[in-house]
Amino acid sequence: MMTSLGDKGEGHRETTALLGNEDEGSVQTQTKVLNQGSWTQVSCPCCVSEQVEPLVLIQLSDNIQPVTKRWLISLIEVSERDGGAALLAHPGEDECGDVIVVSAPRCTLLRATEDLGLCKKYHNGDMVAFSYNDRDNFRNVDDMQEFLTLAERQYIVKYELDFLRAQKGQKIPGVPESQGVLKARENICQKLEKAGVIKDIFPLHDKQRLTDLCRNWYSGKQIWGQPLDSIQAYFGGTVGFYFSFLDFYTWALVPPAILGLVLTFLLPGGGSGAGVVKEQAGGVVEVDDSPSVSGHMVQAVFSMLWSTLVMEFWKRRSSSLSHRWGLLHLAERFAEPRPGFHGTLGINPVTGRLEPLFPEWQRQLRVGLVSVPLVGFFLGMVVLGMTGFYHGEALAQGFHQDSDSLFSGALLYLPSVAHIIYTNMLGNVYRTVAMQLTEWENHREESSFQNHHTTKVLLFTFFNYFAVLFHIAFYKQDLSLLRKRLASLLIVTQLVNQCTEVVVPFIVDRFFSAPQKKQQEDDPNVDKLRAQRSLPPFPGLFAEYIELLVQFGYLSLFSCVYPLTAVLLLLNNVTEIRADAYKICKLFRKPFSAPVSNIGVWQTAFEVLGFVSVMSNCWLLLLSPRVREFCLEGGISGRNIILFAILVEHVLILVKMILAFMIPDEPDWVRIKREQIEFHSMQALGQQKL
Amino acid sequence: MMTSLGDKGEGHRETTALLGNEDEGSVQTQTKVLNQGSWTQVSCPCCVSEQVEPLVLIQLSDNIQPVTKRWLISLIEVSERDGGAALLAHPGEDECGDVIVVSAPRCTLLRATEDLGLCKKYHNGDMVAFSYNDRDNFRNVDDMQEFLTLAERQYIVKYELDFLRAQKGQKIPGVPESQGVLKARENICQKLEKAGVIKDIFPLHDKQRLTDLCRNWYSGKQIWGQPLDSIQAYFGGTVGFYFSFLDFYTWALVPPAILGLVLTFLLPGGGSGAGVVKEQAGGVVEVDDSPSVSGHMVQAVFSMLWSTLVMEFWKRRSSSLSHRWGLLHLAERFAEPRPGFHGTLGINPVTGRLEPLFPEWQRQLRVGLVSVPLVGFFLGMVVLGMTGFYHGEALAQGFHQDSDSLFSGALLYLPSVAHIIYTNMLGNVYRTVAMQLTEWENHREESSFQNHHTTKVLLFTFFNYFAVLFHIAFYKQDLSLLRKRLASLLIVTQLVNQCTEVVVPFIVDRFFSAPQKKQQEDDPNVDKLRAQRSLPPFPGLFAEYIELLVQFGYLSLFSCVYPLTAVLLLLNNVTEIRADAYKICKLFRKPFSAPVSNIGVWQTAFEVLGFVSVMSNCWLLLLSPRVREFCLEGGISGRNIILFAILVEHVLILVKMILAFMIPDEPDWVRIKREQIEFHSMQALGQQKL
Repeated sequence: MMTSLGDKGEGHRETTALLGNEDEGSVQTQTKVLNQGSWTQVSCPCCVSEQVEPLVLIQLSDNIQPVTKRWLISLIEVSERDGGAALLAHPGEDECGDVIVVSAPRCTLLRATEDLGLCKKYHNGDMVAFSYNDRDNFRNVDDMQEFLTLAERQYIVKYELDFLRAQKGQKIPGVPESQGVLKARENICQKLEKAGVIKDIFPLHDKQRLTDLCRNWYSGKQIWGQPLDSIQAYFGGTVGFYFSFLDFYTWALVPPAILGLVLTFLLPGGGSGAGVVKEQAGGVVEVDDSPSVSGHMVQAVFSMLWSTLVMEFWKRRSSSLSHRWGLLHLAERFAEPRPGFHGTLGINPVTGRLEPLFPEWQRQLRVGLVSVPLVGFFLGMVVLGMTGFYHGEALAQGFHQDSDSLFSGALLYLPSVAHIIYTNMLGNVYRTVAMQLTEWENHREESSFQNHHTTKVLLFTFFNYFAVLFHIAFYKQDLSLLRKRLASLLIVTQLVNQCTEVVVPFIVDRFFSAPQKKQQEDDPNVDKLRAQRSLPPFPGLFAEYIELLVQFGYLSLFSCVYPLTAVLLLLNNVTEIRADAYKICKLFRKPFSAPVSNIGVWQTAFEVLGFVSVMSNCWLLLLSPRVREFCLEGGISGRNIILFAILVEHVLILVKMILAFMIPDEPDWVRIKREQIEFHSMQALGQQKL
Repeated sequence: MMTSLGDKGEGHRETTALLGNEDEGSVQTQTKVLNQGSWTQVSCPCCVSEQVEPLVLIQLSDNIQPVTKRWLISLIEVSERDGGAALLAHPGEDECGDVIVVSAPRCTLLRATEDLGLCKKYHNGDMVAFSYNDRDNFRNVDDMQEFLTLAERQYIVKYELDFLRAQKGQKIPGVPESQGVLKARENICQKLEKAGVIKDIFPLHDKQRLTDLCRNWYSGKQIWGQPLDSIQAYFGGTVGFYFSFLDFYTWALVPPAILGLVLTFLLPGGGSGAGVVKEQAGGVVEVDDSPSVSGHMVQAVFSMLWSTLVMEFWKRRSSSLSHRWGLLHLAERFAEPRPGFHGTLGINPVTGRLEPLFPEWQRQLRVGLVSVPLVGFFLGMVVLGMTGFYHGEALAQGFHQDSDSLFSGALLYLPSVAHIIYTNMLGNVYRTVAMQLTEWENHREESSFQNHHTTKVLLFTFFNYFAVLFHIAFYKQDLSLLRKRLASLLIVTQLVNQCTEVVVPFIVDRFFSAPQKKQQEDDPNVDKLRAQRSLPPFPGLFAEYIELLVQFGYLSLFSCVYPLTAVLLLLNNVTEIRADAYKICKLFRKPFSAPVSNIGVWQTAFEVLGFVSVMSNCWLLLLSPRVREFCLEGGISGRNIILFAILVEHVLILVKMILAFMIPDEPDWVRIKREQIEFHSMQALGQQKL
């Protein structure tokens, strides 16, 4: 498959050489399947170009009326002044087909670049927020392929489509009257999706670029790094930041892995050798397989400081990436509100534009008085489920000991089964509730919406993962059980993850999808677009981030119990990078990816975990049988050792806070660039009114 | 005194009525004593005015050479392009006198207003960062008395004087060669002060305005509020913010005072009635005079949440004041560095101006590797002194018990005396070290310098005040001693403060200064300036703030021990406001006051204290004999009660953090104004390059 695509790319390069623009081979790979003449015409002379690059595909319902499709195409094509999106539309293979391919002319792209607040290279090499009026001073402004990344061009198309607003009393032709009447300023795309006219909107892969990206990313000899710039250019900001974070985090695992190896194999009394966990009946103090006091403490203090340093240096890395990718001055606050936002129409006091308004205090009230209690209620339900499970298990065990029949033996499994069903049902209900709550909170900006939604789901998922471990550590206070549980979780979850993420998709792709593809490639004229439509939509990065967060949690919360955690995670992440890359490139539709300037709420989640880790580590140290032994030998009373642990905890938290405060969140050069822009805009404000 | 001044004011109002500008009575009060014709001439036609307002007085040495004075006057007068300050100078009574009176022409004032980033009322009523080019669109721009406050005009004169820079090889005429040669870009005013030519530079009081201010502030019937706007206008930003904070904080004391009264007098078992503290020999558990468990806990939880709420709402108040006073967009970062700043000459990468540069990382290294350890060392010395004192006391006590002679009786006082001397000496050394360290850290901005210096002195002073109390609470764990100590500290320090701050100055002013003043007023031509020169310089607001901080500390750290703390503090603060007002108006030279947008590092200090208070309150609850009794009765083990206290502490800290996060730091209307300005400057940046 790979080679045939490669050949294709080269074949096209010959064609492009004849046309005189070698760099754009990839565009023609795509455009060839579309008849260039069928694109709608551009109104502005500067936007006329010979080749139009298909960017986004609108998947319509099968039984779409031609009149509806024509109406939609005209809407896409018409200039913004007349209520359109000022984009280019192509009806696909034929006028009656169920797709519309959309592209964007130069002027629309440039204006949206300014609206979004993207920074681009100025003629002097600086990254400057793009200004349409000043466009001639920006580099590559005549070549949209160079000026904007593919992901940016595709996001802009979505951005323009999202802001198609209905005029008062407008009707959708070819759609029954009951569904087809639009209210004033109603979001047309949302309405069409509700009415079933639009099934999906997604960005198109660019086969040539994708092949190049894959070669540099995971299928070539590239072992130590990832082509982050190309990833960001092809997949966009959120995906670029995820892989950068994964990369950074994997490297950051090296020091704790080395420390874990040293403590386990080199130091005397250095802990439970990998996997050698002796099973012992509850409560008996076991001395043999726990790490020595000094090793234990070194590990705990190290992991507490390590977690702060990692997050502080990631912030610096993140802000340099964000500057490098021109995402440091996003103007989301000043742009149009997100499509789902509603409110009474009014003048935005900041920008002076007519748009729906929703008072901030009302949103805060909704968050504080409804969302927070509801989320708390669900977290309580998780805890309730867990205690119910323990209670039920004890009951079943007692019953089995009393009667010892086959029935009572089978009954032993009942609590587990009931708990799994309960947890799953609760999870499903919660996901729906979280999404609807966040919608109801009515956030103006997409990033704010995402952050609130992520926080809700995150808290719940995290509770689900860690409630049992916390229960063992803090309530049962059984270190050996904790160690056993942690080791099995780490090994089992990693194996399961690797299987589901790498092996299964690979097999599916190799043995099940390959014949289909071959068939398509036999017929060179078959619509490539159809192949992309058959892929499932990308499920988003939440699962990937939560995996990292849970890893980070195991490592920083409980690692002093099982020093080899970091080694296992490091091994896992090296394959994880490739697996995730393969997944996003091959197994799913390309996702839209908004320009973002950091990893958002995940940053906070990791930081909070860092602080919780101080408490859990101090507590685990206090529980450690070695430490107790040590105290007994030294004649220190139990009360004093607790007070000492509290003191240590407070000092460590203080040290973490001072460290976090002392390490600047952005490198000096980024700070200077940012201040330059602030200074210039201050000056500009003064001069503008001359 | 008051009446004679009042008469005078009215007399002048008659004169001004004749001149046709009634509002400026105060200007003539001042200018009358100076011969208007002796002012240096303005170069710019728009700055010509009939009356020049004397703003700042430069006090020269008695034996100043006329040639030096003439040189300095010419330097002040010459335009900035030629290396001068573009101000107006007046030689005082005669050419040979030891003063120069300085004023500023309109253009200099306006340009400096832009440099400092002050916001002023635009023609549409908004507060907009002033722009010289756009000056005609600002209100009152033709009347400097209305446009800028007196404090701003005076600060601008200082600002311009501070940036007089020498040309290469320039010499000061009339000063010996050894002292009189200036290096290139050397700070002329600093050099002249070092050479003894300038003794002091201070802003002049404006008698008429001052009298009006005093009447509205403390000597009139105004009881419930302070004229904050007038205070800010007359004394400037820092003073304005101090009195606003004092005002806000005093009101904030009302709820804890009411709670304290209720707990003490209304609830059964409600604590140690005011002052009824029984003396008991060490260690005996006393049950009678400690508050009940529930009262104790209500008090503790209340004071923890109260401290967060106070600081959060102060932040909101502070940002509205800052917007109201046009201080929300100060451009200190982009202005010239502070006079004491040095570095290698280079191009500032942000503003592109030639100025001394000093790398940020080097400053951070200095702070982290030298300042922090040194401050830590001095704090250690305080602790050492305290333990030495306790040790010495025990020794002396033992010796006295053994020998019981007159000599050993006298020896009992030795540890106290030695400790007081030690503490005083340490304090003096530390003050010098703190100032020099902060100078050496080489901060570019004045606010950053102030914050670092304040932090250093603050930490030390705070340690000095609280080390003993913390020692009693955490080490000796003696609640009754703590209660005794706290009550006596509160009563004694308040009495002493009130005496030194109110009674003594009042007596001095009434009986010792009054005859002098009378004599002066008999002779209407005597130089009013001379009277101001005889006042001592204003000692700054550090002592005032630290007094509030220590109060806040007593209240939030230990208040649950002595519930009437808030009542005493409230009484104290009501008089404190008047005393401070009287002090700053009458007893000292007027201070320069930089425009600032908040109370700076004091804000942080109060917030940190709020968090420490959670720990101390939880600890005190744990120690409380009632709680212990309660546990014994309930059969709860000591270990569990400690663990419970830790849990409560962590939950309360979490609640405080969530509260602090949930309450926005600025009111919505300030946020909108700020975002408006950000949006406009972003737009301006885009349009500027057209």
